[in-house]
Amino acid sequence: FSLQMQSRFDGNMGFPGGLMDKGPQETPVEALNRELVEEINLDLSRFACQQEDILLTHVNHSKKLVTYFYAKEVNLVEFSEIEKAVLDSEEWGTETYGVLRVPLFTMSDGYRGFPVFLANKFAGNARIQLLKAITAKNILSEDEVN
Amino acid sequence: FSLQMQSRFDGNMGFPGGLMDKGPQETPVEALNRELVEEINLDLSRFACQQEDILLTHVNHSKKLVTYFYAKEVNLVEFSEIEKAVLDSEEWGTETYGVLRVPLFTMSDGYRGFPVFLANKFAGNARIQLLKAITAKNILSEDEVN
Repeated sequence: FSLQMQSRFDGNMGFPGGLMDKGPQETPVEALNRELVEEINLDLSRFACQQEDILLTHVNHSKKLVTYFYAKEVNLVEFSEIEKAVLDSEEWGTETYGVLRVPLFTMSDGYRGFPVFLANKFAGNARIQLLKAITAKNILSEDEVN
Repeated sequence: FSLQMQSRFDGNMGFPGGLMDKGPQETPVEALNRELVEEINLDLSRFACQQEDILLTHVNHSKKLVTYFYAKEVNLVEFSEIEKAVLDSEEWGTETYGVLRVPLFTMSDGYRGFPVFLANKFAGNARIQLLKAITAKNILSEDEVN
């Protein structure tokens, strides 16, 4: 298993995505796919997200902001193609500052690997979303995550 | 200006590098160039580090470990070539888990950007080395860094 995240312009770890455009009406999943092209140069003909890929919804009442989190499973060859395309994205070096794999293991000191990774800075709900993706896709059990 | 770091297998941010081999004698800069090929697939015919690229030496007396930090300046076209090669390195997905640019600015909230980035987890002396590279290469002044 590998899991892709990005290093962002604002110094946080995060997932690609963004806000829905106010002008032309678009659905959340259309907005996501648009952002995926801009930020990670995703080939939508093969890897577009579908509504059924949704895993989490967060409602921030004070900011009047609803955020949706989608996770898409691909095989390792596809994963490698997707990550290579990131460096040719329109927003590489402006929004997207890095592409990375999450270390999904804990080293023998009980700390390095996934626990250290989780101690990094995360944008918005990205840390919760990461943990959700890991359990929802059966990469680790909830017990292992805890 | 851009500055390249990596996301490591152990969950920390860091620079490419590693330990000198014990068997065949190699100099620190030879060991560095060997590690640069393994970890980031660097084209040594064009970008090999030289002894004069050294910026910092740390001596860890309790671990009996001396670490050297080298910084090499390249132009933006070369920088982009170097980062794309990383994803084809031998150790991509084993030692090297990500390639990223450091956000070298502070956003209007006075926090996002470089300050948030510095709050991430860093391997060994990597955070000090990053700050040293930034001032030594006149990207930011010591006052701006502080």
